[in-house]
Amino acid sequence: MASLTLSHAALSSSTVPRHGSSTTLSIPTFSGLKPTSSRALTRHQLSATRRTVTSTRRRVISNAAVETLQKTDTALVEKSINTIRFLAIDAVEKANSGHPGLPMGCAPMGHILYDEIMRYNPKNPYWFNRDRFVLSAGHGCMLQYALLHLAGYDAVKEEDLKQFRQWGSKTPGHPENFETPGVEVTTGPLGQGIANAVGLALAEKHLAARYNKPDAEIVDHYTYCILGDGCQMEGIANEACSLAGHWGLGKLIAFYDDNHISIDGDTEIAFTENVDKRFEALGWHVIWVKNGNTGYDEIRAAIQEAKSVTDKPTMIKVTTTIGFGSPNKANSYSVHGAALGAKEVDATRQNLGWPYEPFHVPDEVKKHWSRHTPDGAALEAEWNAKFAAYESKYPEEAAELKSIVTGVLPAGWEKALPTYTPETPGDATRNLSQTMLNALAPVLPGLVGGSADLASSNMTLMKMFGDFQKNTPEERNVRFGVREHGMGAICNGIALHSPGFVPYCATFFVFTDYMRGAMRISALSEAGVIYVMTHDSIAGAYKVAVESRKRPSVLALSRQKLPNLPGTSIEGTSKGGYTITDNSTGNKPDVILIGTGSELEIAVKAADELRKEGKSVRVVSFVSWELFEEQSDEYKESVLPSGVTARVSIEAGSTFGWDRIVGSAGKAIGIDKWGSSAPAGKIYKEYGITVEAVVAAAKQVS
Amino acid sequence: MASLTLSHAALSSSTVPRHGSSTTLSIPTFSGLKPTSSRALTRHQLSATRRTVTSTRRRVISNAAVETLQKTDTALVEKSINTIRFLAIDAVEKANSGHPGLPMGCAPMGHILYDEIMRYNPKNPYWFNRDRFVLSAGHGCMLQYALLHLAGYDAVKEEDLKQFRQWGSKTPGHPENFETPGVEVTTGPLGQGIANAVGLALAEKHLAARYNKPDAEIVDHYTYCILGDGCQMEGIANEACSLAGHWGLGKLIAFYDDNHISIDGDTEIAFTENVDKRFEALGWHVIWVKNGNTGYDEIRAAIQEAKSVTDKPTMIKVTTTIGFGSPNKANSYSVHGAALGAKEVDATRQNLGWPYEPFHVPDEVKKHWSRHTPDGAALEAEWNAKFAAYESKYPEEAAELKSIVTGVLPAGWEKALPTYTPETPGDATRNLSQTMLNALAPVLPGLVGGSADLASSNMTLMKMFGDFQKNTPEERNVRFGVREHGMGAICNGIALHSPGFVPYCATFFVFTDYMRGAMRISALSEAGVIYVMTHDSIAGAYKVAVESRKRPSVLALSRQKLPNLPGTSIEGTSKGGYTITDNSTGNKPDVILIGTGSELEIAVKAADELRKEGKSVRVVSFVSWELFEEQSDEYKESVLPSGVTARVSIEAGSTFGWDRIVGSAGKAIGIDKWGSSAPAGKIYKEYGITVEAVVAAAKQVS
Repeated sequence: MASLTLSHAALSSSTVPRHGSSTTLSIPTFSGLKPTSSRALTRHQLSATRRTVTSTRRRVISNAAVETLQKTDTALVEKSINTIRFLAIDAVEKANSGHPGLPMGCAPMGHILYDEIMRYNPKNPYWFNRDRFVLSAGHGCMLQYALLHLAGYDAVKEEDLKQFRQWGSKTPGHPENFETPGVEVTTGPLGQGIANAVGLALAEKHLAARYNKPDAEIVDHYTYCILGDGCQMEGIANEACSLAGHWGLGKLIAFYDDNHISIDGDTEIAFTENVDKRFEALGWHVIWVKNGNTGYDEIRAAIQEAKSVTDKPTMIKVTTTIGFGSPNKANSYSVHGAALGAKEVDATRQNLGWPYEPFHVPDEVKKHWSRHTPDGAALEAEWNAKFAAYESKYPEEAAELKSIVTGVLPAGWEKALPTYTPETPGDATRNLSQTMLNALAPVLPGLVGGSADLASSNMTLMKMFGDFQKNTPEERNVRFGVREHGMGAICNGIALHSPGFVPYCATFFVFTDYMRGAMRISALSEAGVIYVMTHDSIAGAYKVAVESRKRPSVLALSRQKLPNLPGTSIEGTSKGGYTITDNSTGNKPDVILIGTGSELEIAVKAADELRKEGKSVRVVSFVSWELFEEQSDEYKESVLPSGVTARVSIEAGSTFGWDRIVGSAGKAIGIDKWGSSAPAGKIYKEYGITVEAVVAAAKQVS
Repeated sequence: MASLTLSHAALSSSTVPRHGSSTTLSIPTFSGLKPTSSRALTRHQLSATRRTVTSTRRRVISNAAVETLQKTDTALVEKSINTIRFLAIDAVEKANSGHPGLPMGCAPMGHILYDEIMRYNPKNPYWFNRDRFVLSAGHGCMLQYALLHLAGYDAVKEEDLKQFRQWGSKTPGHPENFETPGVEVTTGPLGQGIANAVGLALAEKHLAARYNKPDAEIVDHYTYCILGDGCQMEGIANEACSLAGHWGLGKLIAFYDDNHISIDGDTEIAFTENVDKRFEALGWHVIWVKNGNTGYDEIRAAIQEAKSVTDKPTMIKVTTTIGFGSPNKANSYSVHGAALGAKEVDATRQNLGWPYEPFHVPDEVKKHWSRHTPDGAALEAEWNAKFAAYESKYPEEAAELKSIVTGVLPAGWEKALPTYTPETPGDATRNLSQTMLNALAPVLPGLVGGSADLASSNMTLMKMFGDFQKNTPEERNVRFGVREHGMGAICNGIALHSPGFVPYCATFFVFTDYMRGAMRISALSEAGVIYVMTHDSIAGAYKVAVESRKRPSVLALSRQKLPNLPGTSIEGTSKGGYTITDNSTGNKPDVILIGTGSELEIAVKAADELRKEGKSVRVVSFVSWELFEEQSDEYKESVLPSGVTARVSIEAGSTFGWDRIVGSAGKAIGIDKWGSSAPAGKIYKEYGITVEAVVAAAKQVS
């Protein structure tokens, strides 16, 4: 659903960029920003300030605006903030379902971010150089919907707010990137969002280092995130934030909504660690905004300070009151995840001085926010012009970046994949996988990835590149450490940063258990992450995985050597299941043997035995149930004719699910108990994953 | 496989305990312990010192031993440490598989723990009041096997060391509690072990608070753990350690093997956070032993200091050299996970001055360790006597504790479970679950547990108890915060502390994805954790779950109200699948409708419709595929006769796996796509989880 973010016209334009021209760079006429800190600039701050004329100029103008701040402005800011609060209150009330507490508490930081800080184009939510925002505490999504609505995003009109949590609406109960343009990633399961944000910030830092030139800062945006106490408790958040600190992701700014309330009550009952100190230990810059409810200038100053620290991510701990404004429910669990109820809504209206009807946006607030549409268009136009100039000066880099930005893979990339014949000596598929990755890396500019401390075992290094590290962010091998869950979620963030990214990540197959939360979100949010873990026709598997930009792929690879079996092919692999050998006629073999990955060889050998005894045997390589399901009925019938119920599958894993393939009359050979510690050959024998077992089963069913 | 840890004879004995008698409390004649710190004792230390005469006396005697330390002792210590190193080297070499690096680096701390610090009885690995040891870095298991061997555990004889990683051996490639008595928990997947250790320490603190008396400290042991860089990177470790700090688990002492090497090389590439500071932030006491290779006194002093801090867990960061002693491979990845190779083994023998044959334990080392057999027996005998005295004075508490220690549930406990009739008003099964828990809590002394910040939603509070907290550890409601993975692993630790513990933990069913790593280990390691998430006959489900002390159970509960359907029963539930209504004769219904949990009601209504049209219909409640599989063929045939292939299943979940039950000719109704945000009724309708859909499918297949 994510449309391409750059029109080809814009990309091929050679217009000279109009740096700082007042017609293209529309500076907000309103800003609540006050002078924040008079401390001397650090060397980092100075270098950040110097980076480009454009960004310096914008900052200076903003600062000028600060000094003309009028009292009326603060009143308007408060009105805007209360608009956000009541849109959330009203939508949850109408749905009689949802989470009003977070939007009410986080409305001030939300307002400041979307109205004063972030650069985006509401009419093109996919503009490449936009700032990214992630609501890691996804249950508070009415905050984000209200902000998208005020900012002018077409996905969230008033009627969409009124359809909150209803069938088919653009405003589901948790933010979904594939439903609501303007939402960057799918959040809800706690901790995923902050890890996605780390991936988004990694992507920016990487692309900036790879493509920016001294005279053209073509990649330059921030990643903002709001996370709550729940996110902070989740291990995945610590994993990802440890990496963010390690990588020095200076343009990642996370707001920790420190409201001391979680579902079971005060966080005192389960969460008394010193979060600030932990983040400092993780290598973050930490700022505490003590009054997140009305300390707007504190929030603004914190963001300025965060931007001035360019070598570390920043966590701004913002102490807020959950359900701020509700006289009887604020600062309690009751406001977290249920509608306030008509009586308390009235009380809150009275308390905050809000005389309007539900869903009403006061005119002055509407007018104030309306500037984001022209401003956003100008920001994008400016960038497009800048890119056009870049392209004419650096055509090679521009072509690569364009592929990453648009998701159009370079023509003929798949020709880089080596192919094999039965004469090619056998090898472990993990080794073949490494060959594939190293063949693809030069032709796929968006291929980045790595392993959770098993690169040498997963064979996932791209040998022509170095490590993505704090001081070498242009490199493409990512070292995730032993952090599987964080790794998966970071890759989701990379995948969803730009459609041409092809992130891969690797670990042992069994540790999919550790990152299942992230893998589920890959599938749900259409993030085409490649999980490197095998299968039989390895080249085919990579072709499918690279082409699958909207769903994740798992490659489960062998450690032991496997032969190149006759009949295996890239084409067959792409169908999920296909016949590799058959001595039957009329689509009526006596028996069908179905092998997968490392067990395909056993099926082939068993077929040889059975054919010696005069049987007609088909051998099917079955690499993906899902891909096979998607084939035509004719194709499926050609591989697994319904008339042939004598079927045996063999896989060195649980037989769970194979019944659908082998049917009631067939037999699934597998391992329905725990593994053991012994040499591989011994284990295969003891568990009955053998030619003899397949032959016996085939005789039994046929 | 865990045998009972107290003989009934011992438990019923009324012998007066012989505190400090030199015949029963055999003090090690050797100790390398030196005076460590002369700082004034804190109030906590003083109160800890005063707690019992016995423990004070033991400590004093140890300190006396310190002053008689001889030079020859250090030589003997080194010999013992090198014995451990070479047993690991030789076993890995013989298997040509395994991890020598950690045992070589951690041998000093291992020696000190098992030889000088820990209290255990090698001839009864299940003695209740033993100190627990967890090797969280489970790949380094040869360290533990070598220590168990030297300490005199029967499970690890010399021939077992020689069978390392072989089929059927007691020394598999990672430690397995169900294979090797002396191993407390199953480790290998990184981070699980430290979380298990938190659970073990929680169990001790809880039981001590509940059962100790001013005159009888019947529960008093430590939990030690060794974890590596990999464990430290895993989110689960941070989750569990945050809780350990929150709970103030003063008798948890973790050794962080800080060797700066992980599989992909120097930890600098992915792990540069300040671990000490993070642990301080988590509320731990942190000590750094800079020379873990030869600084034996540093290690000893650190342990003494750790014991003196009774209100916080302690992390002792021990900087070691991985593969210490190997001249060419130490301090490199190459020594982590592969045999050294004959040449390097020789070089290491030469380097460490080790002239012995493989697997040789020098006589003086053997002699030195031999005292642990009589000493351990004495420790247990002393405790048994103490318990007998306790029992005569506090019979009620003793009976409860005995149930927890032995795993024999109080007679008639299951009578506490309420039962329901079709006339009982419908209710959400999560509410019924709460009724069950509250009915069981008074009769099951080992029932402890809680939720990952969803207690009010999972309905898991035991209302008659307070919260297990730092200062109220005698209470039984555990507040895990939003830490699912850590929660599961902590419950594994509780379950494996003593066989009568019945730990339960709760979250939304979908978040099993977050704790799958721990759930897998529950099943593998025979930890009978109850995962509270539903099903139809809720009382029956709890009966099965409580009785399943060697495998985990998942209860997937409804949020919405469900009726008490006629025909459902505790007995039927225990069989996994059973007929609840049937209007057929001769075991030949026209069609079988199979419902599960909240969808059983739909199956019943569809049956009503079909029967009106003259069909004979059987309705089966299918609550557990696994339990059904375990029934006799006769029983299975009586519920799902092979002659009746017209079968329809209905479950509001993936249809994956249902093929085995409904067969090729049947139909599985379910949801093979993502969920949506809308009111429940609307979603059921849109996804076709309806009476109409079941009726249509039934007509199609019959």
